[in-house]
Amino acid sequence: MVCLSRENFAVEGKRKGTPCSSLGAMAITEGGFNEAQVIAALKEIFASSDPRISIGIGDDAAVVTGGANQILTTDMAVEGVHFRTEWSSAFEIGRKVTAANTADVLAMSAKPDYLVVAVALTGSESMEWITELARGIKFEADLAGAHVVGGDISRADQLVISITAIGSTNKPITRSGAKPGDGIYLSSLTGWAAAGLAMLGSGFSEDGAIIQKAISEFKSPTIDYGFDASKANALCDVSDALVIQAAQMAEASQVCFNFDLTKIQGAAEFAELEKVAQKLNADVWSWIFAGGEDHALLATGLHLPGLLIGEVTEGTGLANVPTGVEAKAWQHF
Amino acid sequence: MVCLSRENFAVEGKRKGTPCSSLGAMAITEGGFNEAQVIAALKEIFASSDPRISIGIGDDAAVVTGGANQILTTDMAVEGVHFRTEWSSAFEIGRKVTAANTADVLAMSAKPDYLVVAVALTGSESMEWITELARGIKFEADLAGAHVVGGDISRADQLVISITAIGSTNKPITRSGAKPGDGIYLSSLTGWAAAGLAMLGSGFSEDGAIIQKAISEFKSPTIDYGFDASKANALCDVSDALVIQAAQMAEASQVCFNFDLTKIQGAAEFAELEKVAQKLNADVWSWIFAGGEDHALLATGLHLPGLLIGEVTEGTGLANVPTGVEAKAWQHF
Repeated sequence: MVCLSRENFAVEGKRKGTPCSSLGAMAITEGGFNEAQVIAALKEIFASSDPRISIGIGDDAAVVTGGANQILTTDMAVEGVHFRTEWSSAFEIGRKVTAANTADVLAMSAKPDYLVVAVALTGSESMEWITELARGIKFEADLAGAHVVGGDISRADQLVISITAIGSTNKPITRSGAKPGDGIYLSSLTGWAAAGLAMLGSGFSEDGAIIQKAISEFKSPTIDYGFDASKANALCDVSDALVIQAAQMAEASQVCFNFDLTKIQGAAEFAELEKVAQKLNADVWSWIFAGGEDHALLATGLHLPGLLIGEVTEGTGLANVPTGVEAKAWQHF
Repeated sequence: MVCLSRENFAVEGKRKGTPCSSLGAMAITEGGFNEAQVIAALKEIFASSDPRISIGIGDDAAVVTGGANQILTTDMAVEGVHFRTEWSSAFEIGRKVTAANTADVLAMSAKPDYLVVAVALTGSESMEWITELARGIKFEADLAGAHVVGGDISRADQLVISITAIGSTNKPITRSGAKPGDGIYLSSLTGWAAAGLAMLGSGFSEDGAIIQKAISEFKSPTIDYGFDASKANALCDVSDALVIQAAQMAEASQVCFNFDLTKIQGAAEFAELEKVAQKLNADVWSWIFAGGEDHALLATGLHLPGLLIGEVTEGTGLANVPTGVEAKAWQHF
């Protein structure tokens, strides 16, 4: 058994851990770097002079200024389940896991303020890989306006990254406020991450800008930080699939989500995504409705920004979902 | 590749995951229960009527009332590294991981308010095991006065539990305020968790109350929630080892930690712990100074509660550490 405790880091590589006579800290430096070097590098990468952070990385916990409406959300990503190191760089993985968390804060109509990051490393990562992961987290945190104020490094057989985002808002918007007559909006077209995954899985390679966009959106989805959802009646982020989140929102709001496919077809992004689908002989509607991990925001309301994709009506469930797509999203559910 | 997204849970047991055509939610119900049942059970276990929680489990994120001095800390525990399912029940594991987090909040002289919990399951856990884990988390959270307001369920080859604790305080106390003349205090004697681990590792079994205490402290350490550290000059929790945290505090405060072993020997708990050490022919001082994961609080100041174990003096580093113990704690570091 290898013992690793809070704030410590071990690079034991091929060395078999001996049974721990103590439960204490253990961090072998055979890998060429030690805990102190990792912590020092992370402190430098995540350094912040934001006056709301009285104590950052280095003590038992961080001390920050909170707010009246504080948003809390956590999201864990596991190697081989949520990302693959052979497909994505450490920087891209860092961005992606961070984005999954910041998107959940946006999904409450809130602003991400702080992040804490717990990472289990396998012991085979290089110092460069670890710092690139941290830089990816920092890059996405900067886009979101959030600060990394604490963390934990542990060890596991698989890479595991667990982030908690803490945000704030004047007025949280939930999934349950959709009203008949509301327009249904996406902050941007969904399906790109699914397209990127399909592209990587197919082995098909091409350097075109649209293909690269799909792959990039799978590796590190672009979060619509600028989307103004403050006037929305209901809001969530599309992390699983559009039909799944729409169904959840329809149920929470006791309404029907009536999609308008002609409106989606009219979007400039639709034509681009359709081109990728044609190359792979794939169904573009499946990507849009049954894909996931784009983290686009799904909102209902009147005259919202973004892409109008339908209307909330009286009733329950979903209407006018493309044939076969709903079953596809739910078949694994 | 098995795809599992936020808030979903899969029990795929022996079923090999097929490549994901979509990145969407996947949760096979072959295990006899599905995501909805798990979430429903967790919502019930973690239900809270605290008026500071406006939105709990179920939306994209929780919405709670924050404070001016908000404490943030995260701690991840990995199967085989921080706990063993063959040694500890799900309930004990839940308590232990929660305690590691709440202790870090106490270590800032703060009160834990909220927890978010991310768990990666292997797919072989029963519904009962999962709910017992949740009950252990809830039990410890109740002791701490904290509420579980959100979470994430994912999948990995090893069990991984990552908790973030959010607390509040009027006056955070850091590691850097120790002053010459301060007494050095422990909220309770360290070494019990190390004794319990040694006991379990030895295969030695005995039903005596003291032995059971040691094993219990390893499985789910008792956190000193009642310890009043509000008048301390410096404070941390002993998660790694007393010599490690004392050295960190001495360095942060630019002072020397001068231990008084006769004072430690005078403690009633010392005699008990020494009996366990004698049974295993182990060194009680190694457990006390080089053991870890008791999460006792280490404080300096004048006339504090707890166990007086020495005095802060001018200088640097540690003085009067029992022979060989310091090297033992640091040899893996």
